[in-house]
Amino acid sequence: MKILALNCGSSSVKYQLFNWNTDQLLAKGVVERVGIGDSFIVHEVPGRETFREEYECNDHNTAINLVIKTLTQGEHKVINDIKEIAAVGHRVVHGGEKFKSSVEIDDEVIKAIESVQHLAPLHNPPNLSGIKAAQELLPTVPHVAIFDTAFHQTMKRHAYMYAVPYEWYENYGVRRYGFHGTSHLYVSKRAAVMLGKKPEECNLITMHIGNGASHCAIKNGISVDTSMGLTPLEGAVMGTRCGDIDPAIPLFMQKQLGVDAHTMCDILNKKSGILGLTGKYTDRRDVLDGEEHHDIRCKVALEVEAYRIKKYIGAYYAVLGRVDAIVFTAGVGENAWLIRQMALEGLENLGIKLDLEKNFEVRGRDGESTISTDDSKVKVFVIPTNEERVFIEDVVAIMSGTYTDHTKYPYTFLK
Amino acid sequence: MKILALNCGSSSVKYQLFNWNTDQLLAKGVVERVGIGDSFIVHEVPGRETFREEYECNDHNTAINLVIKTLTQGEHKVINDIKEIAAVGHRVVHGGEKFKSSVEIDDEVIKAIESVQHLAPLHNPPNLSGIKAAQELLPTVPHVAIFDTAFHQTMKRHAYMYAVPYEWYENYGVRRYGFHGTSHLYVSKRAAVMLGKKPEECNLITMHIGNGASHCAIKNGISVDTSMGLTPLEGAVMGTRCGDIDPAIPLFMQKQLGVDAHTMCDILNKKSGILGLTGKYTDRRDVLDGEEHHDIRCKVALEVEAYRIKKYIGAYYAVLGRVDAIVFTAGVGENAWLIRQMALEGLENLGIKLDLEKNFEVRGRDGESTISTDDSKVKVFVIPTNEERVFIEDVVAIMSGTYTDHTKYPYTFLK
Repeated sequence: MKILALNCGSSSVKYQLFNWNTDQLLAKGVVERVGIGDSFIVHEVPGRETFREEYECNDHNTAINLVIKTLTQGEHKVINDIKEIAAVGHRVVHGGEKFKSSVEIDDEVIKAIESVQHLAPLHNPPNLSGIKAAQELLPTVPHVAIFDTAFHQTMKRHAYMYAVPYEWYENYGVRRYGFHGTSHLYVSKRAAVMLGKKPEECNLITMHIGNGASHCAIKNGISVDTSMGLTPLEGAVMGTRCGDIDPAIPLFMQKQLGVDAHTMCDILNKKSGILGLTGKYTDRRDVLDGEEHHDIRCKVALEVEAYRIKKYIGAYYAVLGRVDAIVFTAGVGENAWLIRQMALEGLENLGIKLDLEKNFEVRGRDGESTISTDDSKVKVFVIPTNEERVFIEDVVAIMSGTYTDHTKYPYTFLK
Repeated sequence: MKILALNCGSSSVKYQLFNWNTDQLLAKGVVERVGIGDSFIVHEVPGRETFREEYECNDHNTAINLVIKTLTQGEHKVINDIKEIAAVGHRVVHGGEKFKSSVEIDDEVIKAIESVQHLAPLHNPPNLSGIKAAQELLPTVPHVAIFDTAFHQTMKRHAYMYAVPYEWYENYGVRRYGFHGTSHLYVSKRAAVMLGKKPEECNLITMHIGNGASHCAIKNGISVDTSMGLTPLEGAVMGTRCGDIDPAIPLFMQKQLGVDAHTMCDILNKKSGILGLTGKYTDRRDVLDGEEHHDIRCKVALEVEAYRIKKYIGAYYAVLGRVDAIVFTAGVGENAWLIRQMALEGLENLGIKLDLEKNFEVRGRDGESTISTDDSKVKVFVIPTNEERVFIEDVVAIMSGTYTDHTKYPYTFLK
């Protein structure tokens, strides 16, 4: 059984083709610059050389056609017929309050996704275009939506309500939603395995830190708070996003710079965070390198990022009352030993003791590691995330009728 | 020696006259609706009936003249001659990075205050008007500026830098400043006394919760982080201010409502917080009453406020590493036992144990209390704040040439 996973952004289509029976990735790739000219596909098949081709794609329809063609025809194909694709999983960024779990797509679901697209105007419309294009090409197979927000729908209102006019919640859906759900789900289940406990017995703080970054407080296996909010702008310092700031700042700076809300949103999303502080970098390896070479702004960026992570750990510790483990994942979380070390420094009174050597040694995506000392009351893990795995298993579970929701479904990675 | 304290808002002038030698408040009051018509003065003298009089004040000059007249003439006077006033202390909201302590006002100081007034356009201009008007009336006595921000100037850059374009810091002064400095100063010194330690030995989390609210992490006696930021909008849920939200929300809602940055700033400052959530209340007594009568929105407001306090306690615990005491102060902090109880619930693993009975009993501004259990590693205090005391002592210290700064000056309330 082969499953196609699609992730349609505003100007890109990412894809992966899995063989569920053999537990193998058959191919993955991306079509870039969809609808903006000079588009091209990059197609990777394990064991073969990466294939790159220019191909004009004016819309998601053409791009998905190109993906299917590349998968099924010519020398780079991995299957012989489109009919081998048994199901398609679609990443949908914003499910609003309507979706608490993955779901098979029908007209109702499409309408529901449309009804919350004002909450993610850059993401949901291309997600929907992708769904419609894929449905045309593969009309007889199940299409499944997997939401970034679904995992966090277990949050209670004290965690998701903002202290703004209540009508904003009722009329416009202004509340905390949270993102990176499949990643927090995956690493939290893996952490339970590492603790030798059931997920519902575990209190965890999961730190997904990549170019985007979000933290999650997990109580008895479910998300009770998370750092991203209405949008992915809130929370941690990110590659190009500001994270938490005084909400007066965008308004103050709109006035100072004479720019509109749209431009300000762009600056806070694309020119802030690590890029804003350093003026040149988003990659933390560059920042760490700069810091070593006494670049003062790199030093500031590093200090600010680590300090904010520390504050979230404290905040979520208080929320949870008892913490079994802290989990670092994603590019920065899995690799940046110095950020982890700075963030966890001085937390001994919280029962958190980092093993400095172990922490230093874990700098690659090479497996799951414990980086706390043996006598640390709170364990600290580095767990490579695997969002695609959640994706595929949700599709398979829905196809086979065994899916309930992420709190109950017996994922294979729970062993 | 009599000292006049002035606090000039955009349309009001608050004042207090103290006799330093006898340690007595001689009079206090406020001129309301300055410059907007129908202005009046409310004048209180301990032991006498409150006096209220309509009096047209088109500017701060006229209002301060009215204050002096009321203090020195007619049946409500408390001194015989303006010459009895030995010095004037002026509250200045925003001192930017220029002022790390209180300072005697000269032309340089005025220029410096003017140079940061873009940071507090609603507050610093009237503060300056008040200074100039008072200087004209009392040209021969010292005028002293006491800043809301000065106490927090000990913060390090990892705590005060936002992850926004670095030029915003360099060119516009965008950083965390913090406010309520005199209150955090006062209660932190009193907490040291209650702990039987020197201030520089104390790690504290001080929670000033009134209509405005800010929290402060104090390490070895000095402010290392605080919840208010560039402006007093950030941080805790307040009477009418939103506190922490996704910074995308103001921009998102500007678009939805079709309003400009100025209007949005107004909504977040004046129509959000507890008022936004409940739709009708800012006073927490009303909220608690509403919650008891099953008003769902009051319940939400209460839950959200308490939950956010808990998160700050956790965050600052992590920042400090070791905490000697948590201090609650100001109207809500001193009175709202239920908010304190909800905020401190389940923090036993942090060494925080509330004595529920003691906490319940402390509901008035009637002295300093310990509300933690005897075996609580972290003490929890309720300490009525006394910002005026800091005000007056700073003026006296500067007059007598003994002032250094708040970290070293031996305030009388340190005994």
